[in-house]
Amino acid sequence: MRFVRYGEKGQERPGVIDVGGGVRDLSGVVADLGGAVLGDLPRVDPETLPRVAGAPRLGVPVAGVGKLVAIGLNYTDHAEEAGMAAPEEPVVFMKATSALSGPNDPVILPRGAEKADWEVELGIVIGREALYVPREEALAHVAGYTIVNDVSERAFQLERGGQWTKGKSADSFAPVGPWLVTPDEVGDPQGLRLGTRVNGAVMQDGSTANMIFDVATIVSYLSGLMRLEPGDIIATGTPAGVGMGQTPQRWLRPGDVMELEIATLGVQRQEVRPPI
Amino acid sequence: MRFVRYGEKGQERPGVIDVGGGVRDLSGVVADLGGAVLGDLPRVDPETLPRVAGAPRLGVPVAGVGKLVAIGLNYTDHAEEAGMAAPEEPVVFMKATSALSGPNDPVILPRGAEKADWEVELGIVIGREALYVPREEALAHVAGYTIVNDVSERAFQLERGGQWTKGKSADSFAPVGPWLVTPDEVGDPQGLRLGTRVNGAVMQDGSTANMIFDVATIVSYLSGLMRLEPGDIIATGTPAGVGMGQTPQRWLRPGDVMELEIATLGVQRQEVRPPI
Repeated sequence: MRFVRYGEKGQERPGVIDVGGGVRDLSGVVADLGGAVLGDLPRVDPETLPRVAGAPRLGVPVAGVGKLVAIGLNYTDHAEEAGMAAPEEPVVFMKATSALSGPNDPVILPRGAEKADWEVELGIVIGREALYVPREEALAHVAGYTIVNDVSERAFQLERGGQWTKGKSADSFAPVGPWLVTPDEVGDPQGLRLGTRVNGAVMQDGSTANMIFDVATIVSYLSGLMRLEPGDIIATGTPAGVGMGQTPQRWLRPGDVMELEIATLGVQRQEVRPPI
Repeated sequence: MRFVRYGEKGQERPGVIDVGGGVRDLSGVVADLGGAVLGDLPRVDPETLPRVAGAPRLGVPVAGVGKLVAIGLNYTDHAEEAGMAAPEEPVVFMKATSALSGPNDPVILPRGAEKADWEVELGIVIGREALYVPREEALAHVAGYTIVNDVSERAFQLERGGQWTKGKSADSFAPVGPWLVTPDEVGDPQGLRLGTRVNGAVMQDGSTANMIFDVATIVSYLSGLMRLEPGDIIATGTPAGVGMGQTPQRWLRPGDVMELEIATLGVQRQEVRPPI
């Protein structure tokens, strides 16, 4: 199933996508898509639910995100383009949850941004608490998958003091969605083509088959470092083709349009806006 | 005023400290110490509120912490003992909010911990949203101050892939409290003596006067990188005397007792426990 949260920012309601791609209202079944609901997502026939008229705005398809954890340099080709060695263990950092944004909301450049960049990533949504979970049990803690654009300001990230959080946390720097897709519908999370177009030109075109650390390894590994809770989102790294890796380097400018796609997980589309 | 949250974990109620050091029940005045309440903390005479019997457990004195941001290497003497250069800009990283813990709750070592360490830090609690706030207006966004023990597993932090979050985020690695103290009671936040005793022996003894980046600078700087929201907590770095800086190095072991103190902000006390 494909779950969404629709409506104005801060007032989203739960929904599901029907066979025709329309939104159906799930608020008669669950109050929201957060907390314990994520560990036991409702199985309902979307066609039995009320239609939502028009094309509502979509929000982050998960409510109450406690942590937004990200894995760095998790594709060999991206580590190469970034000029960094492929890691021996997952590289872990966090993005501010205040950066969360709907999948089609604009990406607003922070003041002083010079090197804003895109990163299409497979997002893992935690459904059940995970602490010291062995790799072979890790996927049982996953509610589903989504797309995360790990928008990054490279100068803030890399030229201003060493820790990456700085360049990863501006408002609107974490578009998530459009859908939370259940594992049964996704199949093997390591067999998904994923990519980014900027103004229609293909910039990233990779496969989750090329992750250095796969989904199960990441969930297990993180669960040994911190408690993963329902609603936590993990961005699993990006393949080659970010702006930093282009020749010449290509940074986001106001008016640019990013489209991010992952097989079975849909498409995000963001217009870039100047700083407020 | 000195605000607390008291009661069992997850069921804390708001309170204030009275003239005799006892806890008074504030739940008739505010539902909890989070969100918009932090921007306009109630001014009540504690002596008019109901006494809370006994010595209840204290929790984190802030509800609904969205972000736990930390500043690294913010005292020259600590940067030296860590063998790192004093930074030209604040070093910013995040701790998982799932690591939050009451000020006197035990610190539980994560599995595989070899180099767990203490860090007494002045904690800033954000009271009003801050985005692109100039330094001279920054303190108006502060609800108050508290103590944070930025517990750190140095092997996880420094020997396993570069980003610090890994060694900063285990459950119980962020004791906060005992109190949220309002700025009028604290006075100059840059004139506070702060220190740590381990098993009664003084390990850290510094002053917030020796911060490289002061409270106003930190709030202003961060507000240019991410939106600061009511309830966000910022740990502002630690002075010299951590275990990593001792000769020989001294790591936390089960049974050790940490006592952290900051002038006007009270004392924390944690016993170290083995991994679960």
